[in-house]
Amino acid sequence: MDKNKLYTLEKINSDELYGDTIERYKEKNHINNVYKLSSNENPYGCSKKVLDVLTNEHILSIYPDDHCSELRFELEKFYGIKNTKFLFGNGSLELIDLICKTFLNENNNAITCTPTFEIYYSLVEKYNSKINKLPLKDFKFDLDNIIDNIKDNTKVIFITNPNNPTGTLLGLNEITSFLDKVRNDIIVVIDEAYIEVIYENRPDTISLLDKYENVILLRTFSKAYGLAGLRIGYLMTHEKNVSKLEKNRLPFNMSSIIQQFAIEAIKDQDFVSEFREKNNEVKNYIYDFLDKHNVSYIKSVGNFIMIKSNKLNELNKKGFLVKGKYELMEDYIRVSIGTMNEMKLFCSVFESML
Amino acid sequence: MDKNKLYTLEKINSDELYGDTIERYKEKNHINNVYKLSSNENPYGCSKKVLDVLTNEHILSIYPDDHCSELRFELEKFYGIKNTKFLFGNGSLELIDLICKTFLNENNNAITCTPTFEIYYSLVEKYNSKINKLPLKDFKFDLDNIIDNIKDNTKVIFITNPNNPTGTLLGLNEITSFLDKVRNDIIVVIDEAYIEVIYENRPDTISLLDKYENVILLRTFSKAYGLAGLRIGYLMTHEKNVSKLEKNRLPFNMSSIIQQFAIEAIKDQDFVSEFREKNNEVKNYIYDFLDKHNVSYIKSVGNFIMIKSNKLNELNKKGFLVKGKYELMEDYIRVSIGTMNEMKLFCSVFESML
Repeated sequence: MDKNKLYTLEKINSDELYGDTIERYKEKNHINNVYKLSSNENPYGCSKKVLDVLTNEHILSIYPDDHCSELRFELEKFYGIKNTKFLFGNGSLELIDLICKTFLNENNNAITCTPTFEIYYSLVEKYNSKINKLPLKDFKFDLDNIIDNIKDNTKVIFITNPNNPTGTLLGLNEITSFLDKVRNDIIVVIDEAYIEVIYENRPDTISLLDKYENVILLRTFSKAYGLAGLRIGYLMTHEKNVSKLEKNRLPFNMSSIIQQFAIEAIKDQDFVSEFREKNNEVKNYIYDFLDKHNVSYIKSVGNFIMIKSNKLNELNKKGFLVKGKYELMEDYIRVSIGTMNEMKLFCSVFESML
Repeated sequence: MDKNKLYTLEKINSDELYGDTIERYKEKNHINNVYKLSSNENPYGCSKKVLDVLTNEHILSIYPDDHCSELRFELEKFYGIKNTKFLFGNGSLELIDLICKTFLNENNNAITCTPTFEIYYSLVEKYNSKINKLPLKDFKFDLDNIIDNIKDNTKVIFITNPNNPTGTLLGLNEITSFLDKVRNDIIVVIDEAYIEVIYENRPDTISLLDKYENVILLRTFSKAYGLAGLRIGYLMTHEKNVSKLEKNRLPFNMSSIIQQFAIEAIKDQDFVSEFREKNNEVKNYIYDFLDKHNVSYIKSVGNFIMIKSNKLNELNKKGFLVKGKYELMEDYIRVSIGTMNEMKLFCSVFESML
């Protein structure tokens, strides 16, 4: 078994996934003004209360609380669920890796749709399992087709909700009726990286946790909370899954100060509400612009929009970093929703290309 | 293959490794004053300059630089070596895991001595390889015995220098003559977690990197730099090893703000020098105390001392957390060197038990 073959950096290259850093992109391409609309980051930063986290020597010089007790307590309070159901990781990425490591054995099968968050594909293959990528239906996760494709060796299903890159949302009823048809030895990961971005009718998926022991909800501080730089994700699931996952976690994976930042972020829900308002306002501005110019796009509940366009390279060259080349949707680009100013600029440049 | 069997939390339980958190220990044991002398943390905190790191929204809300370019640049400057030779991890722990994952295949063999940093044992076994633990000789790593035990399927050797828990040091000549006898397809990891603690005659192991392509030096910000809470370790080795290791690293494993803290820490070498001075002074105080009471101990170049004593439980009960139960050295306890005040208190309590 050649371990180096399992998992090549090319497959989940960080630049490919989230775009280059602005500084490096400027340097490489000799552009002065670069707008990073490729990574779905929060253009309004993060809660000011987070910035006030006291950086004291005690926090920095003592080994972190490996149990993340205080953060766990805050989330427990926020969601009103028991504290045994959380697990924390360096971004969702570490947790997806942990899920694959824990629940997939050699030659198992995992199912998802495409296009979605590409990291699932490479992490499933890393553990020598096969990933079955089914097409989206009307740009949404095709739950019926997933059911039809479940095999004896299917162990994990990845649902991205809202889906990235299409911004489409499955409602609670759709998910419930899907879960009723899934064998209970199959882990259903519902990746909700963008759940907090949803402006209205956010599905209450927390309620699924009591009924379906095979469900893992995956959330992050990288998007609505604006803490992508900190790398902090968490999952919520039945404690029997947490204890299996815990066995594969490396100790002290969450630094002390990052736990503190996350605690303050959770406490400041006003920041998240305001972000939702602003994101919605800017999104409507872009919709109007696209409608006016008869450009096709997919309505999105996220902080990004899929626009039918072949202007990927042109936009990138002009300093607008956007993402494209999605499987089965190569004629679309995904544009992160920046501030109103950034998007007015984007629209005027995009307009000149039409 | 049952993946859950590969790696059980019991083996590398965080509480076992570094002692409990002070708060939890107080609560569980109903003690008000607890002195954590079990984790070799820096009792003087960290550089004040590190505390000034500006926490701005940009750093927090944008994905980190996955290449750690600025940190890499600072270390390159500090050591005067090429920047292609670094790799960063969430503490040495993530890097040791990465080394095992990359260089060990099923049924390979790894060699180290015992007692040493226990994490090697469980991480080697996690990847289905065998760990050959040879006894120390005069409390030092027995390099000759390691040479005698190299087999065809030996792929990795772990040397801890200075050794934890004994605080003994191998000199550059010993290491060089050892490396000359090791097959060059065997990775020799020299774990130098405590190298910056050494007061005098610190071996210049950086010089080994040019001559021996199979050497990996492992360093950390957790000890002399006083940043255990941040989880930041790094390795230095030939670029051919780095590119193999990179393939197994998860992207964005280093958060943006932690990179900033590390950069400031590297720049403040005065803090490290002062720490060495103070640690040495307190260590001499403890030596004098132990000599006066005819208590056996092992002279240590680290910020911890192995003391021959069966008072582990008694000390823990009194609120002095120390570590013991070492393989082949069950009659010793490892005491982290705290501040002069802490150690005067420790000595007076320990004296009452003699």
